[in-house]
Amino acid sequence: MFEGSEKIIDVSLQAGARGLRERPLVFWQTLVASCGAEILSVEHHDTCIAFILSESSLFVWDHRVRMLTCGETSLSPCLIKLIETLGQSQVAVASYQRKNEYRYQASLASFDQELSLLRQVIDGKGYRVGHIDSHHHYLFLAYGDNHHGAAPATYELLMHHLDADVTERLRQSSITKLQVRTLLNFQTLLPEFTLDDHLFTPFGYSVNGVYQQEYFTVHITPQVNHSYVSFETNIMSPQKLKQLTAAMLSLFKPESWDVIAVNQQPVEHHVAEASHSTCSIVSEQHDTVQFNHYQRNDIRLCCETL
Amino acid sequence: MFEGSEKIIDVSLQAGARGLRERPLVFWQTLVASCGAEILSVEHHDTCIAFILSESSLFVWDHRVRMLTCGETSLSPCLIKLIETLGQSQVAVASYQRKNEYRYQASLASFDQELSLLRQVIDGKGYRVGHIDSHHHYLFLAYGDNHHGAAPATYELLMHHLDADVTERLRQSSITKLQVRTLLNFQTLLPEFTLDDHLFTPFGYSVNGVYQQEYFTVHITPQVNHSYVSFETNIMSPQKLKQLTAAMLSLFKPESWDVIAVNQQPVEHHVAEASHSTCSIVSEQHDTVQFNHYQRNDIRLCCETL
Repeated sequence: MFEGSEKIIDVSLQAGARGLRERPLVFWQTLVASCGAEILSVEHHDTCIAFILSESSLFVWDHRVRMLTCGETSLSPCLIKLIETLGQSQVAVASYQRKNEYRYQASLASFDQELSLLRQVIDGKGYRVGHIDSHHHYLFLAYGDNHHGAAPATYELLMHHLDADVTERLRQSSITKLQVRTLLNFQTLLPEFTLDDHLFTPFGYSVNGVYQQEYFTVHITPQVNHSYVSFETNIMSPQKLKQLTAAMLSLFKPESWDVIAVNQQPVEHHVAEASHSTCSIVSEQHDTVQFNHYQRNDIRLCCETL
Repeated sequence: MFEGSEKIIDVSLQAGARGLRERPLVFWQTLVASCGAEILSVEHHDTCIAFILSESSLFVWDHRVRMLTCGETSLSPCLIKLIETLGQSQVAVASYQRKNEYRYQASLASFDQELSLLRQVIDGKGYRVGHIDSHHHYLFLAYGDNHHGAAPATYELLMHHLDADVTERLRQSSITKLQVRTLLNFQTLLPEFTLDDHLFTPFGYSVNGVYQQEYFTVHITPQVNHSYVSFETNIMSPQKLKQLTAAMLSLFKPESWDVIAVNQQPVEHHVAEASHSTCSIVSEQHDTVQFNHYQRNDIRLCCETL
């Protein structure tokens, strides 16, 4: 089984650090290869470079880099390598996020092990959010010396166990990128964004979108029984986020979903027949991370004969 | 962290097999020791022998044995040993049940590995119930040759993340067995049952109750952040089960709970502000296993700094 949910690293540099966009392509190729992925496509925008990877996405701004990878990739060694290469003194804020995995636990380092390695290059705090015996997330958050700025604002909507009709359509070998774009209704929802997308074989879809300072990325893994879609962006407008969230939930009809919002206003969305659980972290530098988990009611549990 | 949720094995013998209660105490001591537990207390009743174990309970009837163990114990080797000792030809129905664990996954065999070992002694089916990326259970169900009877009826109520006031009270070193019995209200709910109970150090409580053909057992692990109570019985009356379930939920106020009912009428309980998911298995011998998961709404997620 392919594990769609992403690990994420995010590094912001101190003001005055060398711009990351000056780095040659081979720098990013090497970084991406070090976690077992490869670059499939690159788009240069006015404010950032957006890469589609074999396993998710990479965004590079002058003073920030954010990489998402799914599947069996391991991302914390990549963060360690990045901090070592850029120099710990250049780092303003660094974070690493990982969901509890199920299938690959044997091959992956535990979060505790990752924490102790990460702390050899930068001092930071680790958090577990959510009950250990259920769906939960891990977060590592570190600040550079003498840094008093904020972590970049992000909004993640992670949707699990999607509507069977939509995923069946997305698994059709005849589907085109244009059809997926139309399904996702980007033309209406995010008309200004320049898109770069990729259809995987036998199925799966990734798209990066950039408009001025804003980006978004969507990754769809429409597997039977384990379907998953992630949407993330740095759009800040509560109205816009509400509209995008409602559109995604309406299209994919997930059985459960998470919202992870960093330095965003709380995004309330009430869905009839869904239960809601929540938790917030406020870091020593006053960054806020808000976790919300939604679970739809009257779900037919998955039952597999082994 | 101690993992409270139990693994369970259950073996029913063919009519005419040698009665299990004839076996000497050392037979059960050896069996229990083989999975890393020990016998703390024994009660001989008219119909069965009920043991309190260092990690849960063991019930022995003439033609049936059921053992529950929690923590780091491994119970499938025990089932294999039991079938080998009793003789596969003597077995009518055998089952093994296990919840997904979180902490001990590295040290425990995977369910797939257990399945292939179990199938070397008895042919049976394995099931996974619940989504792989969330709370789920594993079940192995096997029938002896030429057996056309039914698996024993059982009702399990597994409660996770309990009310803080009750668990705090149950962690008090001064608490007595009588106080716990009173808290659980056995006098009113199950007045006919003969009880045998045990308080663990530093905390934790187990009780076995037997009345004629009926038994129940309750195991409480009142840990901070990981509290858990299991209740199980072979009581068949829907009214009685409804009353007992309501009393347990009202006392422990769990954030989430599972009901696993084997060959029972569906037990409906609607709790305001809880979402419900469900699944049923019907075996080749027409045994039914009904799984229900309930999740209370507006839960504050657990957040731990690591």
